Amino acid sequence: MARASLKHRIVDAAIDAIHRKGFNATSIQDITDAAAAPKGSFYNHFDSKESLAAEVLDCYWRKILEYLALLNDEEIRPLARLKTYFKRLGAVASAKEYRVGCLVGNMSAEMPDQSRVVRERLAAMYAAWSRAIESCVKEAQLDGSMRRDMDPKTVAAFLLNSWEGALLRSKVDRDSSAFDAFQRVVFTSLVK
Amino acid sequence: MARASLKHRIVDAAIDAIHRKGFNATSIQDITDAAAAPKGSFYNHFDSKESLAAEVLDCYWRKILEYLALLNDEEIRPLARLKTYFKRLGAVASAKEYRVGCLVGNMSAEMPDQSRVVRERLAAMYAAWSRAIESCVKEAQLDGSMRRDMDPKTVAAFLLNSWEGALLRSKVDRDSSAFDAFQRVVFTSLVK
Repeated sequence: MARASLKHRIVDAAIDAIHRKGFNATSIQDITDAAAAPKGSFYNHFDSKESLAAEVLDCYWRKILEYLALLNDEEIRPLARLKTYFKRLGAVASAKEYRVGCLVGNMSAEMPDQSRVVRERLAAMYAAWSRAIESCVKEAQLDGSMRRDMDPKTVAAFLLNSWEGALLRSKVDRDSSAFDAFQRVVFTSLVK
Repeated sequence: MARASLKHRIVDAAIDAIHRKGFNATSIQDITDAAAAPKGSFYNHFDSKESLAAEVLDCYWRKILEYLALLNDEEIRPLARLKTYFKRLGAVASAKEYRVGCLVGNMSAEMPDQSRVVRERLAAMYAAWSRAIESCVKEAQLDGSMRRDMDPKTVAAFLLNSWEGALLRSKVDRDSSAFDAFQRVVFTSLVK
């Protein structure tokens, strides 16, 4: 039990540090220090920093899923769900003063050419994330609130990628203008 | 002269290395090795790795400007210019097997919380880049090919941010699908 809990602490500390500083700027020592774990204990739990990265992404994915649940909320109309979903993600970024962005986006900038394991994990995450958005887009097209002249899969991928781009920009501008432009253009041009 | 040329070589080597591996994963030694320069010579030309980053961005900006020239080409209709512009950027990424993405996007993921100098430089680049796109959007709205119910400044920021997001995704998927989705959605939903 103590062993599991130490591993858990290391992963939590790693998510926080990698999210703030990036993968390459975070040393194993930074992580074990933040987890109040002896440095040597790292390799009892992880083969490498790369395998830690994979676990960090799995753990971050569970956070993404919590927000994605909103897209299935049948109490709310599909288009309003999409709008609120991205508003909430924007509020999370804003609460962190636009400093950290999205761990998935950050890792996509830094890691694909460095680690095949991480690249494949990211690809799977984007695919699943896109599918969740796609199913809401499909519903919004069916109920007539969203234009139907584009394939929902394509629209969903575009929305997700564009959102990641808005997050990147918000880290640079330190304000919500990229999110505002996203909301304005998406929910003007894709609605019916 | 020899001095200027060595500095130039260091900046060129740095653009290449930082573009491929990211800022934090690139050491000064990596750069001086690639430039065939003595490691000690680095500090004759740069105060710090951070001041090199600023020069790297300035130099990359000149490459961005070469492509941006297309947006002023009055031989081509404004909407077609925009379409072709993003197609060309996609072709550059594809020629590099989707491995490197955009240096501006990569640095936006990695650097804003680490370096104020770099963050401000990035913000100025995005602003100038957005303005170049905005003026083409404005022309396309005026000639009636693009819908006019959104402010061209907002549309331009959205296009640029979305493009950066598509580049991120293409690094993960190693294919053009993010660019295809961008072209499909943008040039369906924003045209008239």
